[in-house]
This record gives sequence, structure tokens and C-alpha cells, in this order.
Amino acid sequence: MASAKDKAAARKRFEDVYTAVRDQLLSQFEEHGMPGEAIEYYRRSMDYNVPGGKLNRGLSVVDSVAIFKGRELNEEEYTKAAVLGWAVEFLQAYFLVSDDMMDSSITRRGQPCWYRVEGVGLIAINDSLLLEGAIYQMVRKHFKGEAYYVDLLDLFHEVSYKTEMGQLVDLITAPEDKVDLSKFSLERHKLIVIYKTAIYSFYLPVALAMLVCGFPVEKASPTAPDYYKLALDVLVPLGEYFQIQDDYLDYAGTPEQIGKIGTDILDNKCSWCINTALALATPEQRAVLDANYGRKDADAERKVKEIFKAVDVDGHYQEYEESAYQRINALIEKVPEVQNAAGDAVLRRDVFRKFVEKIYKRTK
Amino acid sequence: MASAKDKAAARKRFEDVYTAVRDQLLSQFEEHGMPGEAIEYYRRSMDYNVPGGKLNRGLSVVDSVAIFKGRELNEEEYTKAAVLGWAVEFLQAYFLVSDDMMDSSITRRGQPCWYRVEGVGLIAINDSLLLEGAIYQMVRKHFKGEAYYVDLLDLFHEVSYKTEMGQLVDLITAPEDKVDLSKFSLERHKLIVIYKTAIYSFYLPVALAMLVCGFPVEKASPTAPDYYKLALDVLVPLGEYFQIQDDYLDYAGTPEQIGKIGTDILDNKCSWCINTALALATPEQRAVLDANYGRKDADAERKVKEIFKAVDVDGHYQEYEESAYQRINALIEKVPEVQNAAGDAVLRRDVFRKFVEKIYKRTK
Ligand SMILES: [Mg+2]
Ligand SMILES: [Mg+2]
Ligand SMILES: [Mg+2]
Ligand SMILES: [Mg+2]
Ligand SMILES: [Mg+2]
Ligand SMILES: [Mg+2]
Repeated sequence: MASAKDKAAARKRFEDVYTAVRDQLLSQFEEHGMPGEAIEYYRRSMDYNVPGGKLNRGLSVVDSVAIFKGRELNEEEYTKAAVLGWAVEFLQAYFLVSDDMMDSSITRRGQPCWYRVEGVGLIAINDSLLLEGAIYQMVRKHFKGEAYYVDLLDLFHEVSYKTEMGQLVDLITAPEDKVDLSKFSLERHKLIVIYKTAIYSFYLPVALAMLVCGFPVEKASPTAPDYYKLALDVLVPLGEYFQIQDDYLDYAGTPEQIGKIGTDILDNKCSWCINTALALATPEQRAVLDANYGRKDADAERKVKEIFKAVDVDGHYQEYEESAYQRINALIEKVPEVQNAAGDAVLRRDVFRKFVEKIYKRTK
Repeated sequence: MASAKDKAAARKRFEDVYTAVRDQLLSQFEEHGMPGEAIEYYRRSMDYNVPGGKLNRGLSVVDSVAIFKGRELNEEEYTKAAVLGWAVEFLQAYFLVSDDMMDSSITRRGQPCWYRVEGVGLIAINDSLLLEGAIYQMVRKHFKGEAYYVDLLDLFHEVSYKTEMGQLVDLITAPEDKVDLSKFSLERHKLIVIYKTAIYSFYLPVALAMLVCGFPVEKASPTAPDYYKLALDVLVPLGEYFQIQDDYLDYAGTPEQIGKIGTDILDNKCSWCINTALALATPEQRAVLDANYGRKDADAERKVKEIFKAVDVDGHYQEYEESAYQRINALIEKVPEVQNAAGDAVLRRDVFRKFVEKIYKRTK
């Protein structure tokens, strides 16, 4: 495992590419004759929304490329992988800025949500569109001319659209202001999680790394493995597991562990915990859930948590986690460690193992 | 000129392609296992926001392809051109849904703005993202495999990003709730209009038609004409002229003419009229404008209109219109009517003339 110092250095190197990418985007604004205040505004929007997270998604593009190639990346290879990593982080920023508006959220990463910042407000809608548009600017600048350029574009479109599909289902299933638990189910939860989170958070970074390493999108022959399908089949369950953890920690984690106070119960979130409780509840318990879930009221929240305890959400979570872990590891072992056509990269299982290692039994 | 009956038939044929495109998008939702209420919601969002406008932008893709080819289109050619026409209309819907939220607008096309419809609200943000995402789904479905597929993607990205740039400048120049005329100028107005409106409304439809007709994006030789630059150089001034007309009609047109009551003065819009008045006003007139522009108050609006009269905005508009008309026609005459490489399409000036014909001295 990498030392804390190595990790900090890796993060620093990655962040330097952000600065370069951001400055390219700002220079382009200047070349188009945009006024100084627009350039300044755009810089502020990017700096506020893009680089402040854990960067797991972005860094995993860089890590995955290095694992596939089986060696350290040279300067040019590193930059290319990092640009795609930042493209994923821009995509994430685009989703978070708009999601926070739709959820009327108050804070994000320990600071006010962007739309609540002085002088921003509803302009944040257009800011999120620019964050998305920036992806295609940076991809074009760094990849136009590569054989896989069009595949990068198709991939970003595909993944964005699916995330927006998942967002729609989430929004109509669990509107913040209208509680209706009859719309909830573990099946619905799974659909939302896969589309809204797993695909862009887990599949996208690895698929980008695969494209950069020359794994073809089209199958070479009818019997050849479909590399992208193989990756998807591992990474979607992994993303599902990650989100179920996130849901569980929101309920069971202490604020010291998770760095925030969980609000899923108050916010009527279609979380794994409520869906599990609904599947297990007696009619009496169900009535308590119906009456108390999604109310902005600490007492109601406490009553919901009592039902979660009574139906043993905790025990079911331990069981789920163990079986998900086994199942995902079995899927990983089935991934064939094949070479690409050029022979300079191998689809190594370690890419997937690295994700599992980061996630399994995490408490934050 | 086409008869009213011909025009209605052309519109009907075009609208049938919308129905097909929409149903493809909905089938795709179904294939992904989206729940029935999500499919129904998405259908409603598309039907409400995409097909109800004048369809000028979309129809001009179809018209331009037919003019470049110099003949009627066969069924397959028509469908392809029409799909791109609808892609432009989806892009427009994406911009309008989000713009109406950011402007806190009340109505659009004679009905409530989408975000004000029961059960929509802030979900409209994600709806606008889906409307944009749909563009890449329909383009992929109908054009993947064409040599110019990647050029279509680059073009939509380029144009969308520029529109978002213009939107940002507009939003920080003329926020609805904070009047500061010192930020206004005819130069700023021009920048906003070109980026926010002209490029997607005028350049995009023609550039799409050019791509479908096989005009290459890359210059064949250093001395060969840059077809896309030629088109841009005509269509941007044309779009500017169109928006200045729009601004002028908002002020000077009767509700019978323009089909709505102009609100640009009340809404603090960075319109050609106020910018012209600012350039001409005495210090006393300027003080009246500062005190009364952008207030939600009929009396303040009247005072602004009096200054517009006093500085002769009307006369300056007539002058502007005449000179723009001459200038644009001169630009059109300079476009070389060259053939594409396959010899089956010619870059005909009539495409540009047709726009001018539709716009010149329009009163609605
Ligand atoms: Mg949220
Ligand atoms: Mg949300
Ligand atoms: Mg959570
Ligand atoms: Mg508006
Ligand atoms: Mg606006
Ligand atoms: Mg107007």
C-alpha cells in the first residue's frame, strides 16, 4: 500500500494537471474576447466546484492506466490519463452543482453549495452546463487525432445520459417535499444506484483507461471477449456496493467517521436502509415508517431509526456486505487477463482489486 | 415562394420525424428498464418543450440540404437531414428550459414555462440536461459510421459551449435583480448576441447541412476555401441582425404584431435599444435611464420609452437595418459557389439568401 507521503505526492501531481487544464479553458475564453469579469467568474466556478473532493474517480483513471501498462507512465502518458481523470471530475462537478440545486441542499464538502454563494444563485444552472461543456473542450484539445477520440466522446455521452436517466428516476421516486414510500423498493433503489452513481463513478474511469490503452470497443471477432462488457459487469456491482455502504454509513456512521451528519431519513432519500426496512417491516412498523420518514423533524427521525434497529438493518447490512464482497471477487477472478493488440497493455485484475481494497469495510 | 399549403405540408412531414425520434428515445428508456412513470414523464417533457416553436432552425437544416444538393431529397436523405434539424430543436429546448429558470420567466410560447408546470419545478434542471443528452443519442443512432460523424459531435460541442459562454456574459451583465447600466455597451451587446444566439440559431443549421453534404471540415489545400469559415462570416452578422430586430420589435412592435407584450425594459435586458440609447443620451437622459430601466413598473417603463423616442432609437434602427441588409448581401455575393469533392452538392448562395428573405423587414 502506498504511504501517506506517496499519496500526497500523487495528488499534488494530479492537481497540477487541473491547473493547466483550467488555464487552457480560461485562455480560450480570452481568445474568444470574453470580458474579464466573465473569465474571473468562470475561474471561480471551476475552482469552487471541481478540485475540492476526494478525487477518487479522477485518480483512478491514472492508476488504472499505469496498472494496465504494468509500468510507470512517462510525462505525456501521465498528462493524457490525468486530463481524462479531470474530465471525470468535471462531470462529477456538473452533476453535483445541479443536484444540489434540485435537492435544495445547503452544504457540500463542508462549504455552502455553489448556488448559495453570493452572486451566483440561478446562474449556477449555466455554470453546470459550462462544467459539462468543458469536458469536450479538454478532450478535444488533448485527444483529437487519436484513433479512439470518437470512442471517448461516445463514452462520455453514454455515461452522462445514463446518469441523467438515473437522476430522473430518483427525482420522481423520492421528491424532497412529497413522501410516498409506496414508490420505494429495493429493486427501484438498485436501478437508481446503478444509473445515477455506479456507471459514472466506477465504470467510466476504467473504461477511459481502457480506451487510452488501446482496448478496442468493437470486438475483434465474434468469439473475442467484449472487454468493456467485462469491466461493466464487475464495476456496476462494485458501484452498487459502494452506494449501499454510503447509504448505510449515512444512517449508522458517527459524524466523526463520515465527516458529516447523515440526513437521508430527514430528506426522504430512497436509501438502501429504508428499502430494506420496508421489505422487512410488519404492517405496524410500516405505518410508523410512513408517518415519520422524510419529515424534517428529529423526533420522526428517531422513530424511523428505532424501526431500522427493530428489523435489524444492521445485521442485514453485514450480510449484504459479506456476500457482495464474495460475489465481486468471484467476478474479478473471471476477468481474462488478455493483452491488447499492440501488446503493450494487459487487462489486469489488479485494477478491479484496487477498487475493492479501497472500499471494503470502509467506515468513511 | 412556397404557398401556405406547401409550408403546412413541409411542417407536417418534419413533425413526423419528431414523433419517430421521440419514440426511439422512449424505447431506449424502456430497454434500460426505466419505470413507466419515468418514461411517461420524459415523453411529457419532450412534447412540452421541443416541437411547439416556429421550427425555423430545424426546418432550415432540411431546406439547406435540398438547396445544396439542388434537388428534392429521397426518403433516407430527408430523414437524416430532419433528424439533425430536430437535434437543433432539442438544443434550443435545452437552452430555453434552463434560460427560463434563470430568468424566472413566467410564460413561453403562450403557455407556462416548463419549470412552472405542476410536478416539475426544479426537476426541470435535469430535464434540460436530458434534452441535451438526447441530441447525442439521436445523432449516434442515425450517423454512427458516417465519415463525418465525429465532425457532427465536434460541431454540437463547439456550438453548445459558445452558447453557454454567451449565456454567462448575459447573466452577469444584465442580472434581472440588479440594474447596472455601466456594464452595458453596444460592444457587449454584440458579444452576447453572437455567442448566445447567432451561432446556434444561424450557423449551426447550415454547418450541419454542409457536413451532411460532404463539405470537408479540413481544408483540402492551404489555398482552398474554408467553407465553414465562409458560412460563419455570413451567418453571424445575419444572426446579429435577427436579434437586433427581435430587440427592436420587443420595444416597437405592437402585441398584435409580435404575439406577446414586450418586457425587455422591465426585465433589465441588455437589448440593442437600451445600448443604442445609452450611446446617444445626454447626461440628463442617462440619469433617467439609470433611474428607470429594469424596474418592474409601468411608469418607469414609459419614461425609458420617452428617452428612446427622444434619442431616435427608431431612426437609428431603420439605418441599422438598411446597412445590415446591404452588408450581408455583399457578403453573400462573395461566397464562392463551389462543388464538394463528390460533385453531388454545391455551396449555393441561395441558402443564405433564403435566410435574408425570411428576416428582412419582418414585423413578427
Ligand atoms: Mg443530492
Ligand atoms: Mg439528488
Ligand atoms: Mg449518501
Ligand atoms: Mg430568457
Ligand atoms: Mg436569459
Ligand atoms: Mg426578445
